[in-house]
Amino acid sequence: MQSVPGFDTAVMRCIRQTVRMSDRVLITISDGIADVRFNRADKRNALDAEQFLAIAAAGERLKAEPGVRVVVLSGEGASFCAGLDLSTMAVIADPSSAERSGNPGQLTEGGITHLGQQICWVWQELAVPVIAAVHGHALGGGLQIALGADIRFVHPTTQMSVREVYWGLVPDMTGTFTLSKLVRTDVAKELTFTARVFSGTQAGEYGIATHVTETPYDDAMVLAREIADRSPGAVRASKELFNRMATEGAAEQFAAERRLIGEQIGTPNQNEAVVAGLEKRPPVFQD
Amino acid sequence: MQSVPGFDTAVMRCIRQTVRMSDRVLITISDGIADVRFNRADKRNALDAEQFLAIAAAGERLKAEPGVRVVVLSGEGASFCAGLDLSTMAVIADPSSAERSGNPGQLTEGGITHLGQQICWVWQELAVPVIAAVHGHALGGGLQIALGADIRFVHPTTQMSVREVYWGLVPDMTGTFTLSKLVRTDVAKELTFTARVFSGTQAGEYGIATHVTETPYDDAMVLAREIADRSPGAVRASKELFNRMATEGAAEQFAAERRLIGEQIGTPNQNEAVVAGLEKRPPVFQD
Amino acid sequence: MQSVPGFDTAVMRCIRQTVRMSDRVLITISDGIADVRFNRADKRNALDAEQFLAIAAAGERLKAEPGVRVVVLSGEGASFCAGLDLSTMAVIADPSSAERSGNPGQLTEGGITHLGQQICWVWQELAVPVIAAVHGHALGGGLQIALGADIRFVHPTTQMSVREVYWGLVPDMTGTFTLSKLVRTDVAKELTFTARVFSGTQAGEYGIATHVTETPYDDAMVLAREIADRSPGAVRASKELFNRMATEGAAEQFAAERRLIGEQIGTPNQNEAVVAGLEKRPPVFQD
Repeated sequence: MQSVPGFDTAVMRCIRQTVRMSDRVLITISDGIADVRFNRADKRNALDAEQFLAIAAAGERLKAEPGVRVVVLSGEGASFCAGLDLSTMAVIADPSSAERSGNPGQLTEGGITHLGQQICWVWQELAVPVIAAVHGHALGGGLQIALGADIRFVHPTTQMSVREVYWGLVPDMTGTFTLSKLVRTDVAKELTFTARVFSGTQAGEYGIATHVTETPYDDAMVLAREIADRSPGAVRASKELFNRMATEGAAEQFAAERRLIGEQIGTPNQNEAVVAGLEKRPPVFQD
Repeated sequence: MQSVPGFDTAVMRCIRQTVRMSDRVLITISDGIADVRFNRADKRNALDAEQFLAIAAAGERLKAEPGVRVVVLSGEGASFCAGLDLSTMAVIADPSSAERSGNPGQLTEGGITHLGQQICWVWQELAVPVIAAVHGHALGGGLQIALGADIRFVHPTTQMSVREVYWGLVPDMTGTFTLSKLVRTDVAKELTFTARVFSGTQAGEYGIATHVTETPYDDAMVLAREIADRSPGAVRASKELFNRMATEGAAEQFAAERRLIGEQIGTPNQNEAVVAGLEKRPPVFQD
Repeated sequence: MQSVPGFDTAVMRCIRQTVRMSDRVLITISDGIADVRFNRADKRNALDAEQFLAIAAAGERLKAEPGVRVVVLSGEGASFCAGLDLSTMAVIADPSSAERSGNPGQLTEGGITHLGQQICWVWQELAVPVIAAVHGHALGGGLQIALGADIRFVHPTTQMSVREVYWGLVPDMTGTFTLSKLVRTDVAKELTFTARVFSGTQAGEYGIATHVTETPYDDAMVLAREIADRSPGAVRASKELFNRMATEGAAEQFAAERRLIGEQIGTPNQNEAVVAGLEKRPPVFQD
């Protein structure tokens, strides 16, 4: 996602000003809990350029919002987030597309991420705890957003996948970092190499889901209430202390993600992966 | 615990000379196994200034003791250690108290810890393996002492908690470091943010207990015997090799713990947490 | 294993030239999958000097082999690898032996390992995924080879052990590094201190086995096929990304392994461990 066009600091400022007008991400703040909902239900909250911007902007708004003690992330409709919009995939598969250039993209203002990484990482940048309530689908970028939260409640039937290798890509939205922190390296590698779809129940066994539950949103709200009733400074200081260790090395890893996906995008094999995927036929790769 | 008054290198020398006279921690050495028991059963081995000093001194004595191949830590009476003494809590809640100053406290002589951290970390400094046998309660500082051991046997009904946020504090006795090494970050954060009490059985599921057993002390002694019968140099060298990786970054994390609890102590919210806790009423916090 | 005589860059060049003639490790490459079998079945694939060289050479050959997308490691006959050959043990126990000198040995050409470490680490150096299929025995060095693979399929009845402390040694073939990455430190220490033999089933519980299965080789081949059908550049880039984090600090840890085993080899306790082990009597150690 390093190539979302026009994402630069001017756009970022614009986003900050206009965030309240976007309905792509809904934010309701009540009693210290910010209820954040991805609101593109007709597309299973898939990520197109506007959705990337709306999620990043939502994170920025919450940083500045007084009185927020906990954030709960969830998706309207049938899914948390189905990953990249297929239209974005088609753009990547078009040999004439500028999106295929492997351009590492603009870093976010003062940050260690580009936009695609930022919609996952902003939840770690927030000083308060962020809880994800995941159901339906969490594929590719959608999974990486969930991994960016502090705590995850996941419905057992959720379809999840480190999907990027299927498209000839690598997980480049902070996922190689966050997955490595939660899951043994052998498991992280197998899930990534195979791009296999796994269930919320399996996510609990792997360590990707903190809790597997039939009611992820309700349970996330109960935990959010419990945390919001604690001394907010002590909670924020605790997140800062755990993040000191958990986020060490992040900048270098994110730079490596940008570099290595840049080396994949536009290669014949990557093009074949996308075209074959869209045509629903087995791909044929060259060594 | 950065503010235990008068803990400086002169005191440390004094402790080393007088350790054999203290009965707050009992040490019996037999056949290469040092059986170390916290001995303040009437207070569930809660930590007051004298107990802090006695535990640190016990660790120093064992460093110098020839023929010790393994250490077993346990608590006399009903509990391993119930955490901070409530009298210490009351001192923290007193607005006129010097303990509330946020003074980062004296570092231990030549060390990377202050006294509160040292009673946990000294077990990693010891060259020989340290096994904790935990029962009854391991709350707050008591849990952090157990986390400082190399291996933990825990009774299933033990009540355990990362209790500090309940008191408007953060775990500042090496616990953010040791917990991060044993437990996934999402689990560590949830336990810390909520200050929830969990059982020894749950500790086994989280990765906090190495073994959950009805007979933690007996089992710890059996394992101690097994290890003490191995070549002691090879055992010490193995601990050194694993600790090279497991203790990297400890000094910086402990400094962050001291800084961030210093920023909490004496705030209105922290005072409210302690007063409400002692009065057994729900606290009311400001943003 | 730092003292395998004559292992230097001249030998390494020689190995590279003669590898195809050795039958100590069999390599069959078919449809992108390199099937690598340790082929010293009469000795349960135990490691003598020739076996060390043959395994290292196999890794080097695969680095240069075009068209390899996945590697599967396994052992001919009854076991994956029973560890050091007992004849090597006897050499270590001989006070007049040059192998007892604690000489840190030649580093591999341009590498961060000596030969004993290289036969484990070369599988991480390979750009493509490496899957180990483990059965029978994986003791000492044999376990450390398996830990060097990216993913492990293990038969439930496999006898496994971090065996080195039993011989008065420490795991010095990258095992303190790889074990620390897969297993909680308390578990890694207990397994190492005790040198206990554990089963493949237990390996699954500890996190040492990715999968516990009755058919490790068949299952490894199925997974290899699945990975080999993915875009090979994306798979290699993914391994590189996960390895950026998983291999950080490896050089320093391997140097520490070489130094600390050097301090054990040739000591009276280490000699006693080997002699008693070979004589099948309880050892008597000095403090």
